Amino acid sequence: MTTLVPVILCGGSGTRMWPLSRRLRPKQLLPLTGTRTLLHETIARLDGLDATEPVVVCGEGVRFAVAEQLAAAEVEAAIVVEPAGRNTAPAIGAAVRGLDGDPYVLVCPSDHHVADPAAFRAAVAAGLPLADAGHIVVFGVPPTHPATGFGYVQCGAPLGEGFEVATFTEKPDATTAKAWVEAGTHWWNAGVFLFRRQAFLDELARHAPAVAAACTAAAAEAQTRHGFVRLGDSFLDAPSVPVDVAVMERTDRAAVVPLDAGWQDLGTWSALWAALPHDDAGNATTGDVVLSGCRDSLVHASRRLVVALDLVDHVVVETADAVLVAPRRSAERVKDVVAELAAEGRDEVDSPTVVLRPWGAYEVLHAADGLLVKRLVVAPGEGLSLQLHAKRRERWVVVRGRPVVTVGDVTREYGVGEQVAIEIGQPHRLENPHATPAELVEVQLGDVDEKDVVRLRDRYDRLGDHG
Amino acid sequence: MTTLVPVILCGGSGTRMWPLSRRLRPKQLLPLTGTRTLLHETIARLDGLDATEPVVVCGEGVRFAVAEQLAAAEVEAAIVVEPAGRNTAPAIGAAVRGLDGDPYVLVCPSDHHVADPAAFRAAVAAGLPLADAGHIVVFGVPPTHPATGFGYVQCGAPLGEGFEVATFTEKPDATTAKAWVEAGTHWWNAGVFLFRRQAFLDELARHAPAVAAACTAAAAEAQTRHGFVRLGDSFLDAPSVPVDVAVMERTDRAAVVPLDAGWQDLGTWSALWAALPHDDAGNATTGDVVLSGCRDSLVHASRRLVVALDLVDHVVVETADAVLVAPRRSAERVKDVVAELAAEGRDEVDSPTVVLRPWGAYEVLHAADGLLVKRLVVAPGEGLSLQLHAKRRERWVVVRGRPVVTVGDVTREYGVGEQVAIEIGQPHRLENPHATPAELVEVQLGDVDEKDVVRLRDRYDRLGDHG
Repeated sequence: MTTLVPVILCGGSGTRMWPLSRRLRPKQLLPLTGTRTLLHETIARLDGLDATEPVVVCGEGVRFAVAEQLAAAEVEAAIVVEPAGRNTAPAIGAAVRGLDGDPYVLVCPSDHHVADPAAFRAAVAAGLPLADAGHIVVFGVPPTHPATGFGYVQCGAPLGEGFEVATFTEKPDATTAKAWVEAGTHWWNAGVFLFRRQAFLDELARHAPAVAAACTAAAAEAQTRHGFVRLGDSFLDAPSVPVDVAVMERTDRAAVVPLDAGWQDLGTWSALWAALPHDDAGNATTGDVVLSGCRDSLVHASRRLVVALDLVDHVVVETADAVLVAPRRSAERVKDVVAELAAEGRDEVDSPTVVLRPWGAYEVLHAADGLLVKRLVVAPGEGLSLQLHAKRRERWVVVRGRPVVTVGDVTREYGVGEQVAIEIGQPHRLENPHATPAELVEVQLGDVDEKDVVRLRDRYDRLGDHG
Repeated sequence: MTTLVPVILCGGSGTRMWPLSRRLRPKQLLPLTGTRTLLHETIARLDGLDATEPVVVCGEGVRFAVAEQLAAAEVEAAIVVEPAGRNTAPAIGAAVRGLDGDPYVLVCPSDHHVADPAAFRAAVAAGLPLADAGHIVVFGVPPTHPATGFGYVQCGAPLGEGFEVATFTEKPDATTAKAWVEAGTHWWNAGVFLFRRQAFLDELARHAPAVAAACTAAAAEAQTRHGFVRLGDSFLDAPSVPVDVAVMERTDRAAVVPLDAGWQDLGTWSALWAALPHDDAGNATTGDVVLSGCRDSLVHASRRLVVALDLVDHVVVETADAVLVAPRRSAERVKDVVAELAAEGRDEVDSPTVVLRPWGAYEVLHAADGLLVKRLVVAPGEGLSLQLHAKRRERWVVVRGRPVVTVGDVTREYGVGEQVAIEIGQPHRLENPHATPAELVEVQLGDVDEKDVVRLRDRYDRLGDHG
């Protein structure tokens, strides 16, 4: 029996959903629609498909966060790390090239919402015979409104449980979209693909040889370390191009299968608003929110009380370090503001306040001149590098668990309430050999700089980088 | 020469300007229009009037904050503390009763903005001869628009540099206000009053004998401790009534002097928006704010980056623990939401995140189950009570200054980076005998509760209360 390998694309930066989405914690790694992250939802949706463990393709900066989420979800997966993002054709190409044999491959973006997972799985099953016949199957969503932000697929002659593809069109104008939706001739391109490995590689080589060559080389150079499959730098030679342009618009083997499963691309605040449950006035809220007189608005509170009065069609997003307020129709423009903030080098673009690390996570509680207060959580069985700082002292208080601390030549276990003093230049290490998390409050004093760390030994091979 | 005593009313709770304004840090104690608080601005505005030191009337809950602000402003003042708020007639009555002799008294609310302080002082000077002649002088502001939220004064026959008062009217309807503004017959009542002490007391006794009696008794019972003049509990017998109703609308000794000084009652977010400088699109911003496409909006950031897109006539106010978003015309309704939050017992109503104490201030950096992280700043020469906790341990790190710490029987000075461990039930004390502030990071562990403090000795006589 031919196996089915899910390839989960987890590479987007999602700046249109800032400030929830950050470069180092993009939207697919956030629990936007419930308690599970979109990545977790994407994988859970496959349950019942008789698929192998998935291949998750992600960027360097989010690899630890992806690994942590998969571990928390108790999902075994191969994590393929791109040296840099090159859009979807190279991402899919390299992941597919790295597979053995000629399995079915199901490509799923990790930032979609699907209200009816069973209908999703039924559509995939309906596509398998078409894939077996050598087709590259795309899934088409019957449009609910004349969206101008999606690609459209025009159906041709019937083919198995689907249709041949007559045309692909990216982002039509409003008039065209309206005509298509009224005529019922075009579906939204869901960005989900199903094919046999060799069929896709053949089409990639035929229509995008530069992408195919880079993917072949990058997969051959790939190195597996600490559970990550790191693609070789040849990947960087691939042109940055979406798979729709590189393959789908050119191949004569495209087929489309209908997907009527409450699909939503969570690409904008308005899309998220539409996907969330609403109150009687059409408002979607998360967190500690008090509304009065609001209609059709999305109000998200991460950390603090948010009070909104008489807002209509607005978005309010509160996070630990940034707040966004805009009419819903304007909220997409936030990506332009994020680009400006990035140009200014502002931290709010990159990092969430809780920063995930291979050993756990930290959160900045207070930052001032010469003073940084952090909360550190060391995951069970993990540990920070043996390190020293050239310009700062650190003072720790254990507040949970029983961490093992090395300061200078002395290593011992510390209990809750015990204090640790680390002087400038003094080698130190924090480890948690136990089965429950260890938590500490850290006070940094002196010339406080995240880059002031000299790693002497690191179990995650990070002697070169910081943090 | 007759002296002039300013009486500054500092008792308002200002819930219409939540979340900046809090019960324990009302708007007059905030730097809403610049770098100085409204209280400080009110006092600074008198500079050049040849007045005595002011009398500031405030509530129990804000007395330390008032004292701290006056000290920071290097202003000597008598601070009169009301046992509970009873509106302006009792506040003025008790403060005036407590004065000696028959000075001029200038009553100033502490939540007004005056763009032209010299014009303000000139108006006061113009009123002195009228006060000498026994009049109770009110200041009338030529209206710039038909406001319905103010009281109006109708001018009668000319009198010195002012006019007799024909009528007082509180908050007319929009049609009436419009007619008056167009006719030029009525001025806004600025809520600023000038009179000789005895003239006011006579009129108060005549028109509001219950108020007068309570004020006389409360002033007689007043006790001075730690720099505060605390009115006696007879004050509570006074009916809660504004001075306009108790005296001004009834007396035949009222006179009005024009005040054309850019006066604004900062009672609402819209009023604050109007008083602040605007950009070309009519936006007023404070703090770390990025605007794109906004018009005529007020955006305030206290702690975090706030990004606003395409807002028109809106108010966004971000603070450490709460965010408000509303159209400007709706922002006054926030007082209703605050009332609901207060009914739910929510902290966001009472306290700013930085809580002022007689000994300095603290800020909560992190609160979780069994864990509270605070930053403490002990002012020069101040100290916390000798205290103990029944249910929590405390761990301190000195991050600035040289505090003197007592733990159990041992008292000594600690330097930056030194750590202190205080166990459950252990008496301890934190003091700062030096001329610069001392700062500590405090980690509380255990059953964390602000009320868990047993004061053994307190220099501020707070053995009964908490915090």
